[in-house]
Amino acid sequence: MTAAPETTASARLLGLLARDLPPDRLTTDPAVLTAHATDRSGTRLTGEPLAVVHARRTQDVTVTLRHAHALRVPVVPRGAGTGLSGGATAGDGCLVLDLSGMNRVLELSADDQLAVVEPGVITAELDRAAGAHGLRYAPDPASAALSTIGGNIATNAGGLRCAKYGVTRDSVLGLEAVLADGTVVRTGRRTVKGVTGYDLTALLTGSEGTLAVITSATLRLRPVPVATATIAAYFASFEAAAEASYAITRAGVEPALAELVDGPVLHAIDPALRERGAALLVVQCDGAGAAVEAKAVAGLLAPLATTVQTTEDPAEAEALLAARRLALPSLERLGRPLIEDIAVPRSRLAEAVREIRAISARHEVPVFTLAHAADGNLHPIIVVDPSLDRLPEAAWEAAGEIFALALRLGGTLTGEHGVGVLKRQWVAEELGPAAHSLQRRLKEVFDPRGILNPGKVL
Amino acid sequence: MTAAPETTASARLLGLLARDLPPDRLTTDPAVLTAHATDRSGTRLTGEPLAVVHARRTQDVTVTLRHAHALRVPVVPRGAGTGLSGGATAGDGCLVLDLSGMNRVLELSADDQLAVVEPGVITAELDRAAGAHGLRYAPDPASAALSTIGGNIATNAGGLRCAKYGVTRDSVLGLEAVLADGTVVRTGRRTVKGVTGYDLTALLTGSEGTLAVITSATLRLRPVPVATATIAAYFASFEAAAEASYAITRAGVEPALAELVDGPVLHAIDPALRERGAALLVVQCDGAGAAVEAKAVAGLLAPLATTVQTTEDPAEAEALLAARRLALPSLERLGRPLIEDIAVPRSRLAEAVREIRAISARHEVPVFTLAHAADGNLHPIIVVDPSLDRLPEAAWEAAGEIFALALRLGGTLTGEHGVGVLKRQWVAEELGPAAHSLQRRLKEVFDPRGILNPGKVL
Repeated sequence: MTAAPETTASARLLGLLARDLPPDRLTTDPAVLTAHATDRSGTRLTGEPLAVVHARRTQDVTVTLRHAHALRVPVVPRGAGTGLSGGATAGDGCLVLDLSGMNRVLELSADDQLAVVEPGVITAELDRAAGAHGLRYAPDPASAALSTIGGNIATNAGGLRCAKYGVTRDSVLGLEAVLADGTVVRTGRRTVKGVTGYDLTALLTGSEGTLAVITSATLRLRPVPVATATIAAYFASFEAAAEASYAITRAGVEPALAELVDGPVLHAIDPALRERGAALLVVQCDGAGAAVEAKAVAGLLAPLATTVQTTEDPAEAEALLAARRLALPSLERLGRPLIEDIAVPRSRLAEAVREIRAISARHEVPVFTLAHAADGNLHPIIVVDPSLDRLPEAAWEAAGEIFALALRLGGTLTGEHGVGVLKRQWVAEELGPAAHSLQRRLKEVFDPRGILNPGKVL
Repeated sequence: MTAAPETTASARLLGLLARDLPPDRLTTDPAVLTAHATDRSGTRLTGEPLAVVHARRTQDVTVTLRHAHALRVPVVPRGAGTGLSGGATAGDGCLVLDLSGMNRVLELSADDQLAVVEPGVITAELDRAAGAHGLRYAPDPASAALSTIGGNIATNAGGLRCAKYGVTRDSVLGLEAVLADGTVVRTGRRTVKGVTGYDLTALLTGSEGTLAVITSATLRLRPVPVATATIAAYFASFEAAAEASYAITRAGVEPALAELVDGPVLHAIDPALRERGAALLVVQCDGAGAAVEAKAVAGLLAPLATTVQTTEDPAEAEALLAARRLALPSLERLGRPLIEDIAVPRSRLAEAVREIRAISARHEVPVFTLAHAADGNLHPIIVVDPSLDRLPEAAWEAAGEIFALALRLGGTLTGEHGVGVLKRQWVAEELGPAAHSLQRRLKEVFDPRGILNPGKVL
């Protein structure tokens, strides 16, 4: 059947998807479209998406992409929508490909310490399933209770434990992914090592839905550590806390996590916490040497902190970490948080903290700061009035200066959240013209018609 | 000046290089050509290379590639030539680009626990330089005393310590590399985390000189562990040793290394070692919990081994590991070793060992086997008569069956040595047609005229 010439590509696509997908997959309900147009960054593009495909299996993805590719209709892949940089925002005429319904754990092998999962599996649920076998999924993004494995892979998510256990990429052994034209490729392997061919697994990890749509992932699991010790220290200033966290790195101790929370964030969580100090540093050491390492850490912190508290009790540790985990929800109560995500070489952490404070003062924009200190990854957060249509000029300028600061200190625009739309204007500066151009040409190999998440990343 | 039409591309290239490179860089001395035509695999292609460029700085590489690209002359990049799969072999008409003279440590930052090095730096020398600051370069290929960082990156080399500390890729933060047309690109960063753009650093790592020529690398260094404990156990059979090493993984202990040596290898090293058992397993635990972990390992091994010996003394540990480090030189005394490099899911290690023995018996080809047991990475080694021009048919068939075995067990052709020329015929089978085709198209983006290490990998 040939479409009448006046039929638009959008209408033809909807017709083909209605014909070729199982009946419950496609929706054009306006409320669903609005809900699927943005992510946790709150960013909205112009216009509304065309429709949402709720994929349940790989074939739904291949059918969707094959038709969208033929008709050159842009497709925005999406997990739980917890992204913080607008990577899953969908504007006028986009087809949203929602993968949250592909949420089965296909295999969990305690023997080989790996899991094969669909992209919509919630990160914390995988970790819980692994826990039944004495294993865990090591990456621990703060969003783990909500975010999906597919979204974690799309952004190469970091998290609390990556100081010691690496980022998402370090736990991805292999992928099944669908290219823009509907071709299914398998990358990587089930072994912990392997060098046959180019590392497409790493290339897809962190590509933010612009190269392919991930339909399954083989993930490395690791043993739950035999012991964990947690240290919480309060400091008279945020800079002192940053210096102290660097002292741990400099002493050669590799903690499993080292989380910094500044005074304004502590106040937002609970004014009583702010009364205990101007900054909180929570450090966790794990493994057979946890207690020994924790003692070393406590010894390093004692002369620098106002109070230092150590525990090997998991419940008490969780209470200490609760402050950190509550940070974002607490800030969301104050307004719409614009969350930056710079990373700097670890020796520059205190300097970055000082400069961010100066930027905040100069633009009269309050900046709340959290940091994964052992990675040099800072989250300076500007909270804006949610009733505003667009970001105030001063906030935008402060954000720009924070990015420039990161590059000046030898760092990066984004440690773990991704570029999305919010950081795109600074990408070329970080990559340099040769690498930027090379990346664009790689994108064309995967997606020659530019239908996959256009306007994101590059 | 226009070249006369009868001038060949080769002659024109030599003329341009003689004109544009500093005087000591180019050689066409036949003895040098012969020495630079092969690697440690001993593989030789037909014919002799055209010339060798001894690069000393990035500009030598850009000049060389720009001219070679314009004239479509193939270029074979090369480090110390310790590769085991023929990746640096150069045949008729190739230009060899020797990077071993680019051997400066450009920066070693104890503050940021990183080093910036040229590709020709010997791996053990970097490790030694880092040691002066209480740091180390964690990957520990068995060839570390001879191989270069550039060669390690080209093959994504593994090594003894990667069970716990990852492979080369996990220690590469960023690269400077020259594309086929002479364009210099910088990838990655100086921070431990970062997700701006696609992961070109990982894509180049393991690309065996087929995508770009690496001219500098920013490498992560890690603290030297505060303690190390070493356990050596002998077993009545190689299978029992393989089962025992898996028992360690299964119990959730993550040793820094776990090396398996079979009886024939022990005999080749020293007949007295063979008398102590039919297989040796050397395990190292490190960090603050080393002694506790070593005790757990020794407890797991005791009921399975014939003897178990533990030490925390570094000299004694080095003596225990010496057997493992002497394995390859000892086998080279027996003939020309054809070293396979399969990896299997760790639960299949004992099965792989059993099947390799059956393959060896079926083809009447003696197979010597080493393994990085905690990675599931096996090196079955067939030693052939060095006077033979080509591999005996039985050896070739046995090697083919070992590759097939790896794939059948859910494993890979090559865990850490790379594809080179020796494993190329099996690559398509492992990758599958879609990923194989995608990889070829990626190669074209980096090297549209196919001049970089042609005939390797894909």
